[in-house]
Amino acid sequence: MGNEVTKRASDYSQWYNDLVLKGGLADYSAVRGCMVIKPYGYTLWENMRDVLDKMFKDTGHTNAYFPLFVPKSFLEKEEGHAEGFAKECAVVTHYRLKGDPQQKGKLIVDPDAQLEEELIVRPTSEAIIWNAYKDWIQSYRDLPLLINQWANVVRWEMRTRLFLRTAEFLWQEGHTAHATAEEAIEEAEKMLHVYADFVENYMALPVIKGVKTPNERFAGALETYCIEALMQDGKALQAGTSHFLGQNFAKAFDVKYLTKENKQEFVWATSWGVSTRLIGALVMAHSDDEGLVLPPRIAPLQVVIVPIYKGPEQKMLVDEKVHAIVAELKQKGISVKYDDNDNTRPGWKFAEYELKGVPVRIAIGPKDIENGVVVARRDTKEKSSVPAAGLADHISGLLDDIQHNLYNRALQYRESHITSVNSWSEFKEVLETKGGFISAHWDGSRETEEKIKEETKATIRCIPLNNAQEQGVCVYSGKPSQQRVLFAVAY
Amino acid sequence: MGNEVTKRASDYSQWYNDLVLKGGLADYSAVRGCMVIKPYGYTLWENMRDVLDKMFKDTGHTNAYFPLFVPKSFLEKEEGHAEGFAKECAVVTHYRLKGDPQQKGKLIVDPDAQLEEELIVRPTSEAIIWNAYKDWIQSYRDLPLLINQWANVVRWEMRTRLFLRTAEFLWQEGHTAHATAEEAIEEAEKMLHVYADFVENYMALPVIKGVKTPNERFAGALETYCIEALMQDGKALQAGTSHFLGQNFAKAFDVKYLTKENKQEFVWATSWGVSTRLIGALVMAHSDDEGLVLPPRIAPLQVVIVPIYKGPEQKMLVDEKVHAIVAELKQKGISVKYDDNDNTRPGWKFAEYELKGVPVRIAIGPKDIENGVVVARRDTKEKSSVPAAGLADHISGLLDDIQHNLYNRALQYRESHITSVNSWSEFKEVLETKGGFISAHWDGSRETEEKIKEETKATIRCIPLNNAQEQGVCVYSGKPSQQRVLFAVAY
Repeated sequence: MGNEVTKRASDYSQWYNDLVLKGGLADYSAVRGCMVIKPYGYTLWENMRDVLDKMFKDTGHTNAYFPLFVPKSFLEKEEGHAEGFAKECAVVTHYRLKGDPQQKGKLIVDPDAQLEEELIVRPTSEAIIWNAYKDWIQSYRDLPLLINQWANVVRWEMRTRLFLRTAEFLWQEGHTAHATAEEAIEEAEKMLHVYADFVENYMALPVIKGVKTPNERFAGALETYCIEALMQDGKALQAGTSHFLGQNFAKAFDVKYLTKENKQEFVWATSWGVSTRLIGALVMAHSDDEGLVLPPRIAPLQVVIVPIYKGPEQKMLVDEKVHAIVAELKQKGISVKYDDNDNTRPGWKFAEYELKGVPVRIAIGPKDIENGVVVARRDTKEKSSVPAAGLADHISGLLDDIQHNLYNRALQYRESHITSVNSWSEFKEVLETKGGFISAHWDGSRETEEKIKEETKATIRCIPLNNAQEQGVCVYSGKPSQQRVLFAVAY
Repeated sequence: MGNEVTKRASDYSQWYNDLVLKGGLADYSAVRGCMVIKPYGYTLWENMRDVLDKMFKDTGHTNAYFPLFVPKSFLEKEEGHAEGFAKECAVVTHYRLKGDPQQKGKLIVDPDAQLEEELIVRPTSEAIIWNAYKDWIQSYRDLPLLINQWANVVRWEMRTRLFLRTAEFLWQEGHTAHATAEEAIEEAEKMLHVYADFVENYMALPVIKGVKTPNERFAGALETYCIEALMQDGKALQAGTSHFLGQNFAKAFDVKYLTKENKQEFVWATSWGVSTRLIGALVMAHSDDEGLVLPPRIAPLQVVIVPIYKGPEQKMLVDEKVHAIVAELKQKGISVKYDDNDNTRPGWKFAEYELKGVPVRIAIGPKDIENGVVVARRDTKEKSSVPAAGLADHISGLLDDIQHNLYNRALQYRESHITSVNSWSEFKEVLETKGGFISAHWDGSRETEEKIKEETKATIRCIPLNNAQEQGVCVYSGKPSQQRVLFAVAY
């Protein structure tokens, strides 16, 4: 049961896996590429989901639920979409098992129960949703249609990693329909800002907002907006995307509406999603060699209290004080656990809650009640003695402080890892020695983009929104360029 | 766009479908047996889920998430379980599509991408979860393990009905592990009471708590506890089940724990679930010939306000008053919508919100502001004029009153539809003419149970908890019997 964590410097990738597994966030499962999200990790996801869900509702969206299965013929309808997802689909071909006549107690697929048309386990739901929208949208009065779905999806990835890339994952997918292109673009941009707001203010992770190059767009989109974050190993991670889909799905599924002028027009669409992948980003952004470091605003547990005592008499004294503190903290809406399990020693508990990234730990012994309790913050590992009177107010302020400190720390790291380069040799050198985002001129061609990827594994993460226009020459081809774009090696 | 609802008396089944479809709860989908849960229906489900989720957490459970897929060999491990679910499984056999070489733009299943072992889309998660528990449980210190999952499941039903029986449905499934049989039985019973509490106090639907006969038990259970409700057509509906699974799954998946006495023992299990089927029960229990009637405590929308006015000047007067009322209601935690859409007339809106079962409707005209507004309750259709001062308090009380009235009405109906019979002819006559629950002596044999089902379609819904012991003879076989059990034709 060794709970030691691999050091970042020795093996970053193993450090990440250790944190996810030993921190109790998730576990491997018996199904290839699928993970089990354990209670601690799921509570984290619930906290993230609840904040996002409120943001979606506050911006006028409602939730609905569409079928898990997409008939194969639906996937075919939007050509780019089909090409994008066909290679990684879980396909249901039969609807019944039967006893194996050769081997008692074994089951085989019943060959008489083959489906007429195969069903795809949804890799994303545009196709099944737009088929429904055809019936729901008749007139401009039915628009805009602003719907979100929380669901599981399956993409048969060949190389999987806990949270970052799993065959099944949990996500939300917004699917909206609009009367005009302008409205749809406005919606796609609005949701990008909602995502950025969430990731920055709750996950304490600064992001760069931008658009993808045509090459990196979602299958079926005319424009893909994205937020990009930087991990501690200098790799980028796409934290969320929002797509302007034009009329592609409306045309594929024949979804028209009657305008105020009594004309039939195709509807304009967006879709946008974030997933449990965000948990992977969260882990990699803030954690350290002792374990997870979780931002207070979404941490499954904000405060843990560990009693220090000898014998039942001291325990009773401590208990009494702790119960009062717990009540005070809960009244302020702070989640708190009193861990008085006597099977483990305080030192073991301290290490355990550090590993789990609980933002604040309070240790209380019988003497501390008069002198003040010991409060340790996870982010800086600083300890201080705090009088019990007014403790809840102190903790409340401390949680805010930790939240801001995590953001500022990540921002400082990110800012010091955006490097402007002006030559190909510089590009390669920065990528190899420093990593992070590289701001460089690019000639705008798909060919150059792909060659750079082949040679360095770096991709264009985004063209930042409101990007400064600047004359220059492409670092790779030497051709003229109007702006710098952000490159990075990415998860 | 006809929104007329079929009358219960003319076609109960069509009435139900009309309510679900025209009330905006759900829609058929292009995938056989799968439905789309529309925003109004999904909000209802969210409200139900949130209450249940809190109840589960208050009783010590946490949520987690396990894979959608169950390897075929896992399903085989518990024999009864395999037999119970094999016949209705969606089976994933391939993980890739490819372009059809015969037809451009079409996709076919890639024969080179066949899975070594087929994956079953979970019909329930005992197998995949107990496989994980094997790694999670080593010692008595790891017990009890109290986990719940909110998920979608798939059972390939041949005859489906919106909400009541769909191929895919949403549910929660609790899966707990315990050191002793007593503890597991206590847990299974506790969760039955939680379900009964929820269904009675939030859904306003009285239930009978009992246990199933061996014949009707969940596949793999030693005891199945259930709550049974009665619909307005005299048919019963199983609203939730909780299973004592004994050591069946622990043995199938080799899950043992070290006792305090240092011995290895198999773990004891429970599982329990309720699903979107509850929405079907809700619709059938309270609604009437004008549409849905929803209990205030879980209604997606509790109050709707419709303005009555002529011209923009009156509208402004009304608006001002309504905004104050909306603020007051929201402050009390009451959900409210101001429908001032000017595309439809007040009469149309009245009918629409009746159809949707909104508990309270307020109509406000410019004169009503001084004299009082018109408040209509959905359950009794009574209208009254209520002064604007103190309106929020009045509405708050009215919502409670509606909640209790719905429960009492359903209870009265249920109580008048439990009929004790003492002969086979009486049994058949009551079943045909009156329906409802029939309380009758049964000889305890599977044979009799099945013959009664064959002849009348009635099944034993449950043996009520704390059932009175009473000497008698079986209504069907004439053999001696120690207690009455409840029969009914069921959904």
